[in-house]
Amino acid sequence: MKYGFSQRVRYLKSSAVRDILKVVNNGDVISFAGGLPDEGLFPVDAVSNAFQKAIESNPKALQYGETEGVYDLRKQLSDRMRRHKKIIRRPEDILITSGSQQAIDLFSRIMFNPGDIVLTEDPTYLAALQVFSSYETKVVPVESDQDGMLEDDLEDKIKRLKPKCIYVVPTYSNPGGKVWSLERRKALLQLANKYHVVILEDDPYGDLQFEQGETPPTLASMDENEYVLYTSTFSKTVVPAMRIGWIVGPHQIIRLMSQAKQAADLHTNSISQYALVHLMQDFDLDKHIQVIRDTYYERMLVMKQLLDQVNMEGLSYIEPKGGMFMWVNMPEMINTTNLLQKAVEQGVAFVPGAPFYVSDPKENTMRLNFTNATPNLIEEGMNRLVTVMEQAQMESIEKVY
Amino acid sequence: MKYGFSQRVRYLKSSAVRDILKVVNNGDVISFAGGLPDEGLFPVDAVSNAFQKAIESNPKALQYGETEGVYDLRKQLSDRMRRHKKIIRRPEDILITSGSQQAIDLFSRIMFNPGDIVLTEDPTYLAALQVFSSYETKVVPVESDQDGMLEDDLEDKIKRLKPKCIYVVPTYSNPGGKVWSLERRKALLQLANKYHVVILEDDPYGDLQFEQGETPPTLASMDENEYVLYTSTFSKTVVPAMRIGWIVGPHQIIRLMSQAKQAADLHTNSISQYALVHLMQDFDLDKHIQVIRDTYYERMLVMKQLLDQVNMEGLSYIEPKGGMFMWVNMPEMINTTNLLQKAVEQGVAFVPGAPFYVSDPKENTMRLNFTNATPNLIEEGMNRLVTVMEQAQMESIEKVY
Repeated sequence: MKYGFSQRVRYLKSSAVRDILKVVNNGDVISFAGGLPDEGLFPVDAVSNAFQKAIESNPKALQYGETEGVYDLRKQLSDRMRRHKKIIRRPEDILITSGSQQAIDLFSRIMFNPGDIVLTEDPTYLAALQVFSSYETKVVPVESDQDGMLEDDLEDKIKRLKPKCIYVVPTYSNPGGKVWSLERRKALLQLANKYHVVILEDDPYGDLQFEQGETPPTLASMDENEYVLYTSTFSKTVVPAMRIGWIVGPHQIIRLMSQAKQAADLHTNSISQYALVHLMQDFDLDKHIQVIRDTYYERMLVMKQLLDQVNMEGLSYIEPKGGMFMWVNMPEMINTTNLLQKAVEQGVAFVPGAPFYVSDPKENTMRLNFTNATPNLIEEGMNRLVTVMEQAQMESIEKVY
Repeated sequence: MKYGFSQRVRYLKSSAVRDILKVVNNGDVISFAGGLPDEGLFPVDAVSNAFQKAIESNPKALQYGETEGVYDLRKQLSDRMRRHKKIIRRPEDILITSGSQQAIDLFSRIMFNPGDIVLTEDPTYLAALQVFSSYETKVVPVESDQDGMLEDDLEDKIKRLKPKCIYVVPTYSNPGGKVWSLERRKALLQLANKYHVVILEDDPYGDLQFEQGETPPTLASMDENEYVLYTSTFSKTVVPAMRIGWIVGPHQIIRLMSQAKQAADLHTNSISQYALVHLMQDFDLDKHIQVIRDTYYERMLVMKQLLDQVNMEGLSYIEPKGGMFMWVNMPEMINTTNLLQKAVEQGVAFVPGAPFYVSDPKENTMRLNFTNATPNLIEEGMNRLVTVMEQAQMESIEKVY
C-alpha cells in the first residue's frame, strides 16, 4: 500500500544525536555524544518517596487533570522563578508541558504559518531547528560571537525579513556552551521592542552554573512589554524521564498554547507533576543542584586539561561557564563527521558540529558532553579521542604533501 | 502588544466538555458530564508498588529514553493485543504515546494537508474533531445507524470526496455508546481496500464490555492489507494520570509518527512506562478490568431503570453494551444546551449532544456518563435530572398552547 502523507513529513528526519545515542548505548564506547545528565546523580530515594506520596495521598493525582498543569506545581514554579530568575509571573501565566521540547512545539503550532521567518543563533539547538522546519518556517541565522547575536546583523535581518520570532539559548547554550553578555541581551530586547518581535528564550541549562557570581539576568526578567516566552525543564536538575517542562510568558500566548495542548495530548502526566510538588517541599532541590554543578564543573575541568595538553595547530575550544557541553574547533582540514566513524571504532563517541548549523556548517567542529561519564572515563575517553584526532591530522598533512 | 498568530489558531477552541468539567468540579453538582473513570476503582496500591519498582530497580527508567517507547512495554502490548484483540503485530509496529489523544494528533500531523477530507461518524469523539480541524482538514460525516456507517453513503462519499482517512470508534463509542456489527466492519474494510483509504480505529473503551459473549473483532484484527491504524489507552483500565496510550499499525506509518513525536516531545514519560511493565507482571489486570466492567454495568443499569420510569413522548436512549456513556434523545422541542443551565442550578450536569456533531447538530440530544458516580448518587442525580426534564417539557408544551 502506498500512503499519501502530508507535506510536513518532508521535514521530519530522525535526529542525528538520538540515532547516535542508540548505537552508543550498545557496547563499551565512552560517549561524549548525547546530552544525558549523570544517572549517578539522580535523587532516586527522593524521587521514589515523592511518587509514593503523589500516588497514595491524593486520588486526584491519578485522575484526568487540567490542561494548564497542576496548580500547586505552577505556584511553586512561579515562586521559584521569582527567587532564582527574577521572573515575575503568576501561576496562570505558566503552562506545564511534556518537557521543554513540547513547549517549543506548541509555541510553533500557534505562531507559525508556512514561510514565516525564525531568527536563530548558528549553531543552535538541533531539535528546535527540526520543530521549526516541521512547521515549514524559514530559519535564518544571525551572525554571533561569544557574547551573543551581533546587533547590526540582527537589526538588519529583522528589518529586511520581518521575522515572527527570535529563538535563543542565551545561557550555557547547546551546543556552544556560551553565555550572552548583559549588553547583547539588552540589545536583543530593545530590537524586539522596536520592531515588535516575539522572543523564545530556551533555558534548560541556566541552573547549571559552575562558579559563584552573577550570570546575566534572563531575558524574561527584563521583559517589560510582553515580548518574551521563557521555557525550562526539570530534566537536567531532577530526572529526564518525568518529561516535565514549562513555559511562561504573556497570558494571551500561554492561553492559546494551552488550547493547542488540549488537542495535542489533553494534559501532562499528573503523577509526575504532583511528585514534583512533593519533591520541592520535602527535598532540598537547591542543595542537590549545587552537587550537580560541582560534579559537572570538575568533569569539565578534566576534559579541558586533557584538551590543553594537545599540541595541534587550529585546535580551539570554548571553556563553558555552565551547562553540559564543550564546543571544539578542529583544524580546518579535519571533517568531524568522518572522524566520528574512526572514533567509535576506537571506543569513543562525540557529536559532529555540522547538524547544529542552520546553513554553511563548519565541518571541523564537534560537541563534547562532559556530564555523563566519570572523571576516569573522561580521561580514558579523551585519550582515545586525542589519538584519533592526531591520526586524522597526520593523514591530512600527508595528503597535502 | 498585538501578536501575529498562525492560521491554525482559528481552529483551536477550548473543549466544551473540559470547560464544563472545570465548573462541575467545584461544588456539589452530581456530574454525568465528563468521561472520568471512577477514582474509587483505581488500583492505588498496585500502581504505587509498580512506580516504586520502576524507580528503584532501574536507573534507566529515570534517564532519557527512546522515542518509540520502552521496548518491554511494547512487547507486553504486542502479546496482550494478540491475546485479547487478535491483532498480530510486532513491538516494532507499536508507538507509545502520551495518551491516545496524542496518537490522533501525531497521525494527523503526518497524514493531513490543509483541505484533506476525513470521513467520520456523526456524532463522534469531540476531541478528535478538534484535532482534525486544527490541521485544517475538512471533516465530512457519513450516515450511520446503530450498526455503524451505512455502506452506500460511505462508498458514495469515498468515490466523490477521495478522503485521506476514515476515523471510527466502532466499539462502545463516545458519545453514542454503540457497537458496530460484524457486517458493517467488513464492509468498511472492503471499501478501504477497494479505494485505498487508511482507517484510524480509536478503541479506548473496547475492554469495558458489560456482558459475556462475543464482541465483533477489531478492524485491525481483520486488516490484511495494511490499511488500519489502531489506538488504545491505559486511561480507562489503569489510571488516566499516567497519560499512556499507544498506536499500532503499518510500520511505515508508525515510523513516521515516531519521527513526528521526536520533534513534538522526544518521548513519553518513561517512569510511567516502566511502572506499567511491572504492573502487568505483578498485578492481575484482567481481573481488575472485570471488576471495572461489573461496576460500570451495574451503574448503567441503575441509570437505565430510572430513565425507563420516565413517561415522556419522544424520549429514547441507546442501551450501551459497554463503555462509559449513554446517549439520550429528548423530545424535539427541548434544547439540551438550554437545559444544562437549569440542570446545573438543580445540582446535576450532563453534556449536550450538539458539540459532538460534525454538522446539523441534534439539539435535543445529551450524553450521560455513568462511571464516575456511585449508584446512590446516580439515583439522586437522575431524580434531579428527570425533574428538570419534566419542567422543560411542561414549559415547551405551555409555549405551544
